[in-house]
Amino acid sequence: MHCVSRQAVRSTYPLYVPRRPREYCAIQFALTTHVTRGATCPAPQNIESKMGSLDGFIQRVRECNTGLEELPSLTAFLIDGKEVGKLKLRFVDQLRRFPKVFIVEGTPGPSGRVTLAPDLDTCDKRSAKVAEVLQVLRTEGFITGWRDELYPVVAAFNDLPLLLVERAAATHLGIKAYGVHINGFVRDPATGALRLWVARRSQTKPNWPGKLDHIVAGGQPHGLSCRDNVLKECSEEAGIPPELAATARPVGAVSYLTIAANGYKPDVLFCYDLELPPDFVPTPQDGEVSEFNLKPIEEVAEIVATTTEFKTNCCLVIVDFLIRHGYITPEQRGYLQLVAALRSGDCS
Amino acid sequence: MHCVSRQAVRSTYPLYVPRRPREYCAIQFALTTHVTRGATCPAPQNIESKMGSLDGFIQRVRECNTGLEELPSLTAFLIDGKEVGKLKLRFVDQLRRFPKVFIVEGTPGPSGRVTLAPDLDTCDKRSAKVAEVLQVLRTEGFITGWRDELYPVVAAFNDLPLLLVERAAATHLGIKAYGVHINGFVRDPATGALRLWVARRSQTKPNWPGKLDHIVAGGQPHGLSCRDNVLKECSEEAGIPPELAATARPVGAVSYLTIAANGYKPDVLFCYDLELPPDFVPTPQDGEVSEFNLKPIEEVAEIVATTTEFKTNCCLVIVDFLIRHGYITPEQRGYLQLVAALRSGDCS
Repeated sequence: MHCVSRQAVRSTYPLYVPRRPREYCAIQFALTTHVTRGATCPAPQNIESKMGSLDGFIQRVRECNTGLEELPSLTAFLIDGKEVGKLKLRFVDQLRRFPKVFIVEGTPGPSGRVTLAPDLDTCDKRSAKVAEVLQVLRTEGFITGWRDELYPVVAAFNDLPLLLVERAAATHLGIKAYGVHINGFVRDPATGALRLWVARRSQTKPNWPGKLDHIVAGGQPHGLSCRDNVLKECSEEAGIPPELAATARPVGAVSYLTIAANGYKPDVLFCYDLELPPDFVPTPQDGEVSEFNLKPIEEVAEIVATTTEFKTNCCLVIVDFLIRHGYITPEQRGYLQLVAALRSGDCS
Repeated sequence: MHCVSRQAVRSTYPLYVPRRPREYCAIQFALTTHVTRGATCPAPQNIESKMGSLDGFIQRVRECNTGLEELPSLTAFLIDGKEVGKLKLRFVDQLRRFPKVFIVEGTPGPSGRVTLAPDLDTCDKRSAKVAEVLQVLRTEGFITGWRDELYPVVAAFNDLPLLLVERAAATHLGIKAYGVHINGFVRDPATGALRLWVARRSQTKPNWPGKLDHIVAGGQPHGLSCRDNVLKECSEEAGIPPELAATARPVGAVSYLTIAANGYKPDVLFCYDLELPPDFVPTPQDGEVSEFNLKPIEEVAEIVATTTEFKTNCCLVIVDFLIRHGYITPEQRGYLQLVAALRSGDCS
């Protein structure tokens, strides 16, 4: 297979406007190659080798799925017979101190489990008593980063919550946490080229200070649908008016599993695409973002593939965007591995 | 939460052109609701209950993943130490007849395995000898539907093939088979509404006669990249010229596992979106399609959710399209289950 000049392709296909130079190769290949019916090896390996490696993207996905060697040591957390979280030993030891709320059964680890006291038989009762425990652990400095934001504890998304807990306790309890991430992009009307709005997180943020981020992203709290959360976060984080934010389109979800120092983190991110008018400029509203920049999608891809500048979980959502918009192709080695790896977590 | 009239929303957001009536509910909800910080249950369940069930889509995905209770009885097929397939007992018994080519080690089932004779140490040698065996089984009527099309046998996509085999033997050998499916759609320039080109398979096709299908879909043979296969199939199946077919965009992959009467079928389909001009009309080229119809995407969704009119594996690709284009939303119960289920197979 040989690549040909743009001029040669244009003379063959005057109507064709390629998006990327490598498409010339594919077309020329199609013009000159037929299906081989004889038993001739090897495969079309040399096509792919020209098209770049996906190793950088795969590495970013790995960085979202770390610490899993500790998985066998975690203790299941059950409510109403359903597993809703996983706990590290150090947190089980804290919960033991509150036997009127948390019951530790058996030896911590894969054979043991933690449940709630049987008289806590409604979501309201559980939430009130667990909140008292979490406040004690907050006062003692065990739980940091208190947000005053409630997360629902569920066995699966959209289930009725079995318990509501402060967001800062989510990882300690190992509950599934959900979020929304919005790819805010601008399409060049003439060429179709895409640019992505990239936020720089404020240096004063407690988590991931100074890292690159999506134009808008947020945890999914109790009491809001994903869509309404998108409208709320668009307004709060980037000054995107609701009539524009309402055009954000849900496009799927990614998931990952991390075991961090403070606990188990099985996260699911709902992904949205929001096409913005070329003249729209987001403005930092709440001090969480220091600046917004509009970057060509190829530059964003390069940053993701070659640096750790982005907040880690944003990389999954951006890779998903690159796949859905055809910037990563099946001809690149590792394509299927990457597609599958984007949902390595507990997608429930 | 209450739904409001279109007029009421228009007076609040004069610029907002909704795509679907339910968006009014979401916006009105956002206008009247704030994040609940108190421990108030239950969750926003009543929002979702109005938005329809995804059960029909989930049922279609299930129909692509059947017979898995037989999985523990299959025998691994290895080449060069790598598992490349799984075999039913009845096929192992056939292969035993050819001990100069196939070696059956141990008892068929999870503890046994089938390999190739050690002197078959190149892809060419293996392909030639295995072809002789398959021809015998074809002559005896054991292998039907011969295609004269070679599939590569690999441990993972884009690996160098370890063996090339006739496509009709793929399921018997339980090898991973890859295909390309193209969503050929038309976008209404005024409203943005999508319509999908739907093919009706010829009544004379040996597989799935008379079923609905994608405008273009095909198995991924040895010797062509996915992209070149798209160009080839677009031309052969629907008369789509290469300059138009070249605008097809790879958008991801779905996978499924079926254990059928004739063997194990771990399939991966590469999905493409091809936006077609409103005046383009596909034409059946090779007798495989009896007619093409352009249907509103909502009608296609309804057919998939409520009937088995589509060739089963097309349903996965269409559900993926509906998710990526925002027609299925996180507010619908089962969203994450559906997102995860689209890649239930061996996505490697």
